[in-house]
Amino acid sequence: MKDLVQSVELGVAQRSGVEKKRPTILLRSELSRVGLAEFLSTYVMMALGLGSVAQVVTGQGVYGQYLSINLGFGLAVAMGVQVGGNVSGAHMNGAVSFTMCVFGRLPWKKLPLYIFVQLFGSFLAAATIYAIYYEAIYDYCGGNLTVTGERATAGIFATYPAPYLSLIGGFVDQVFGTAMLLLCLMALSDQKNKPGTRGTEPIVVGLLVVLIGISLGSNSGYAINPTRDIAPRVFTAIAGWGSDVFRSGNGWWWVPLVATPIGGVLGAGVYKVFVEMQHPRFSAQDFETSEDESLPLKKE
Amino acid sequence: MKDLVQSVELGVAQRSGVEKKRPTILLRSELSRVGLAEFLSTYVMMALGLGSVAQVVTGQGVYGQYLSINLGFGLAVAMGVQVGGNVSGAHMNGAVSFTMCVFGRLPWKKLPLYIFVQLFGSFLAAATIYAIYYEAIYDYCGGNLTVTGERATAGIFATYPAPYLSLIGGFVDQVFGTAMLLLCLMALSDQKNKPGTRGTEPIVVGLLVVLIGISLGSNSGYAINPTRDIAPRVFTAIAGWGSDVFRSGNGWWWVPLVATPIGGVLGAGVYKVFVEMQHPRFSAQDFETSEDESLPLKKE
Amino acid sequence: MKDLVQSVELGVAQRSGVEKKRPTILLRSELSRVGLAEFLSTYVMMALGLGSVAQVVTGQGVYGQYLSINLGFGLAVAMGVQVGGNVSGAHMNGAVSFTMCVFGRLPWKKLPLYIFVQLFGSFLAAATIYAIYYEAIYDYCGGNLTVTGERATAGIFATYPAPYLSLIGGFVDQVFGTAMLLLCLMALSDQKNKPGTRGTEPIVVGLLVVLIGISLGSNSGYAINPTRDIAPRVFTAIAGWGSDVFRSGNGWWWVPLVATPIGGVLGAGVYKVFVEMQHPRFSAQDFETSEDESLPLKKE
Amino acid sequence: MKDLVQSVELGVAQRSGVEKKRPTILLRSELSRVGLAEFLSTYVMMALGLGSVAQVVTGQGVYGQYLSINLGFGLAVAMGVQVGGNVSGAHMNGAVSFTMCVFGRLPWKKLPLYIFVQLFGSFLAAATIYAIYYEAIYDYCGGNLTVTGERATAGIFATYPAPYLSLIGGFVDQVFGTAMLLLCLMALSDQKNKPGTRGTEPIVVGLLVVLIGISLGSNSGYAINPTRDIAPRVFTAIAGWGSDVFRSGNGWWWVPLVATPIGGVLGAGVYKVFVEMQHPRFSAQDFETSEDESLPLKKE
Repeated sequence: MKDLVQSVELGVAQRSGVEKKRPTILLRSELSRVGLAEFLSTYVMMALGLGSVAQVVTGQGVYGQYLSINLGFGLAVAMGVQVGGNVSGAHMNGAVSFTMCVFGRLPWKKLPLYIFVQLFGSFLAAATIYAIYYEAIYDYCGGNLTVTGERATAGIFATYPAPYLSLIGGFVDQVFGTAMLLLCLMALSDQKNKPGTRGTEPIVVGLLVVLIGISLGSNSGYAINPTRDIAPRVFTAIAGWGSDVFRSGNGWWWVPLVATPIGGVLGAGVYKVFVEMQHPRFSAQDFETSEDESLPLKKE
Repeated sequence: MKDLVQSVELGVAQRSGVEKKRPTILLRSELSRVGLAEFLSTYVMMALGLGSVAQVVTGQGVYGQYLSINLGFGLAVAMGVQVGGNVSGAHMNGAVSFTMCVFGRLPWKKLPLYIFVQLFGSFLAAATIYAIYYEAIYDYCGGNLTVTGERATAGIFATYPAPYLSLIGGFVDQVFGTAMLLLCLMALSDQKNKPGTRGTEPIVVGLLVVLIGISLGSNSGYAINPTRDIAPRVFTAIAGWGSDVFRSGNGWWWVPLVATPIGGVLGAGVYKVFVEMQHPRFSAQDFETSEDESLPLKKE
Repeated sequence: MKDLVQSVELGVAQRSGVEKKRPTILLRSELSRVGLAEFLSTYVMMALGLGSVAQVVTGQGVYGQYLSINLGFGLAVAMGVQVGGNVSGAHMNGAVSFTMCVFGRLPWKKLPLYIFVQLFGSFLAAATIYAIYYEAIYDYCGGNLTVTGERATAGIFATYPAPYLSLIGGFVDQVFGTAMLLLCLMALSDQKNKPGTRGTEPIVVGLLVVLIGISLGSNSGYAINPTRDIAPRVFTAIAGWGSDVFRSGNGWWWVPLVATPIGGVLGAGVYKVFVEMQHPRFSAQDFETSEDESLPLKKE
Repeated sequence: MKDLVQSVELGVAQRSGVEKKRPTILLRSELSRVGLAEFLSTYVMMALGLGSVAQVVTGQGVYGQYLSINLGFGLAVAMGVQVGGNVSGAHMNGAVSFTMCVFGRLPWKKLPLYIFVQLFGSFLAAATIYAIYYEAIYDYCGGNLTVTGERATAGIFATYPAPYLSLIGGFVDQVFGTAMLLLCLMALSDQKNKPGTRGTEPIVVGLLVVLIGISLGSNSGYAINPTRDIAPRVFTAIAGWGSDVFRSGNGWWWVPLVATPIGGVLGAGVYKVFVEMQHPRFSAQDFETSEDESLPLKKE
């Protein structure tokens, strides 16, 4: 019965938003535990995300369209969150991990581990999708692996800018897209401002990625993630597409690497300044579940 | 332990639907707090919503279709609700704020603040999307920014009626669309009549907007929101589309401004009269969570 | 504090699945209350559902495709459930109400009220959509309101069979479609067998209708609802399409009326026999929330 | 009041993740109960899933596209989980049942029952869809039931590989697709690692199937389920398509039978090794509901 009470106390404390120092039972395997989960999340997300692009490209309009890719990457992110969300947080994105470090939610010393497993998971996912769609790709392009042209297939793995896009335009595009991603992710994880996210987080995060694809995708393929972009690009360079993957788009490859962490910090910072830092402290809200305030029309 | 009990009491009281006067700890920064959140919600919603239109228009069928816009605006609304829903209510729509004032859920003195930040957020979002899609728009229309014609781009930012639509037809269209929006929003926020909305409000509100786009969009682009429409229209007038944005559609611009608040009050009023005012007072239901009544087949 | 305890007891009792006789506080206005809610639910569902068909038909491929109609009717049903679900159950469908009567969940004496308001709501919704899309329809068909032919518009309001379909084939189609609808609705409302429906009922019911449209729609337009079909059909007969709406499809009009109640009872009965009647009585499950059993892989 | 306390204790124990030996009240009808539910789940899933393919194939682009099939099978799986999830677990898939046996979640002695009712349900669903779409199929192919060619219809019922696909390529495709399915299903059912799945399981499982269709469908039609594939294949052999259904695709028929159980065990095993076996035992988490850990950005 003591356990019961303790359990109830913990539950209520958390629901009420009261800060509670969690007992730190650090296991020897903590790092490997987090690393394995983050790796598997990233691998699942990338394999299923890249698969949706492979299918649309090689399917030539019969097996889905652009919207399929939006849904594919969005749902893939949702499944990635399901796989490792409770263990590593399932960032699956170096810009997310970097931003979490900047805002003190991830210790800097853990960042290299996150980045490494994200890169490794993305690389392995690219290799897997290459293997799974090997015959489809060769059937589609006749064995001629190119980065540009009518039957280009490099875009299955990494992002490339639209022909009209300048490097500066693409840089702004990636800063803004990642800013929107992190701004909304911060809102979703803000305990004092989450109207109805309990039980739907993975889906909502997935829908956010669907939305960014629908809304900010056509300029440069919405990488909004440095590790997601560079690891498959390196894979394609090795696997037969050659150094064009770095030359194409006027040397586009570095833009998703540099622009996305900037955008992430910017977007998360804007949310913090505009909303999170404005929350009243120790108000009645701290003791309330937000049932009756969570509706758009209810707030006076 | 006292806090725990209090917290439990509050929780239960709310869940049971018993009215509870909430302690009013009004902070100095209350107004700025609400204003900042409403601004950011509106900005995020509008940027991602307009982005989906920009992508479909400039993508020429390759980067999504009409359904992408429906999903784009719907999911953008869902994310807007996530960003500021618990602080300002995330109306993001002057017709919603006006209707809330009419029905006593928002003090009239706060209306100007809401309208102002909604206008400002929408204007800034239009400017952002113009910047992000600057090269795409110029590539698409060859630098010729027009309101009508084959390569018209003004429709990315504000709504314009279909060629067949009369002003009176469009007026009715906007009254009805906004009425449907507010009618359903009132149902979603009715504590005594919400079958299973806990935890899914932002998504359900987003799906409502998806639905209105799918169902009532082709006549005039479903503005159903005065601030969403006029601010980007003013932006386009300044940014190079000129005064045609006001002349086009037989002077369409004022219709979304005037028709939507009328529709909002009408729809919310219908819900109040048909459902909310009919709820029994002090029945057994007040003390029950609605678990077993929330299913369509269960009500005897 | 007494209220609190009572409230907790009630809540727990319900969650545990223990039967509890609810105090019957029948109000004078009970019937009108239920009737108004059922009317409004039906009206909202039908207006937004028919609107999605009107938009696809008159939009000529630019404003959505068949999938838009599937999503439109599905989301419209979800919103209808939101509007009146807790008051009338939001059947919005004569075959659902009839089946509820057969299985003792709705008193037979209330059936005429349900049918009447469903018919009235559907008729009024058809009239509304006719008004809203009046100019679009006339622009599309040149004022020639026909039931068949290239520019036929009667299909916006009522269902018509595909050219290849015989009456007997269509009858079976409607029996089966309605059976699937009711079978799944019975599962969703079965307190002992609902893995994870709390909080998502309206959306899940809507997705069920999306699914039936995607899966069983092309033969005859998935009426699966007698009141949804006949009321708009009568409206079109009056509004200018004439008696062809009854003659077309070899006299199709009576099929959705007769086949759907049969299908409803059949599907609900199959669920009852195969699942509901097999639930163990007074097992340990009665006292458990089904948290750990609700997952597809968890069952031993 | 004793019951109340017991009920609360049970609830808390479960929510806290503490293992609780459930009182085993085995009913005489246990086996038939589970068998009937698994049969009905499978039948509903397969009928609505195959229906979506029938509609797209015979609808010739007017009644949906490839995405409709993805949504159709995904939502059909969601509804199948609703129908029998709490009774049999609603595997509806021999590879899932086999994997559950391998990992000790289903007794081996029950496997034959599961396989038998899954086969029977799938066979009956194929027969039903053949009956429902009988006239549509004959209208489409002129009565010439073929496995290959422009008007082939065998693909409505069973899967066939793309022309370019080798048997070994298809084998790997099916191993990988089923591995992804089981890996994610294991994550969804892991009590210590489910960020926000309460109340959304059926939908999330459905979205997982949508995703696999969008991402891994074009090579060979994503059977990822041996019973789903072989039973309708046998039906078509009998119903008029003849022995070609076994000869086609270089004798493809056995691949979904052999590859999917291998993939299932592989995927589930990877999840177990990478995540489940790494969970700390008896940490603070055991007593916490995971409210504040369920968000992607929250984990330190």
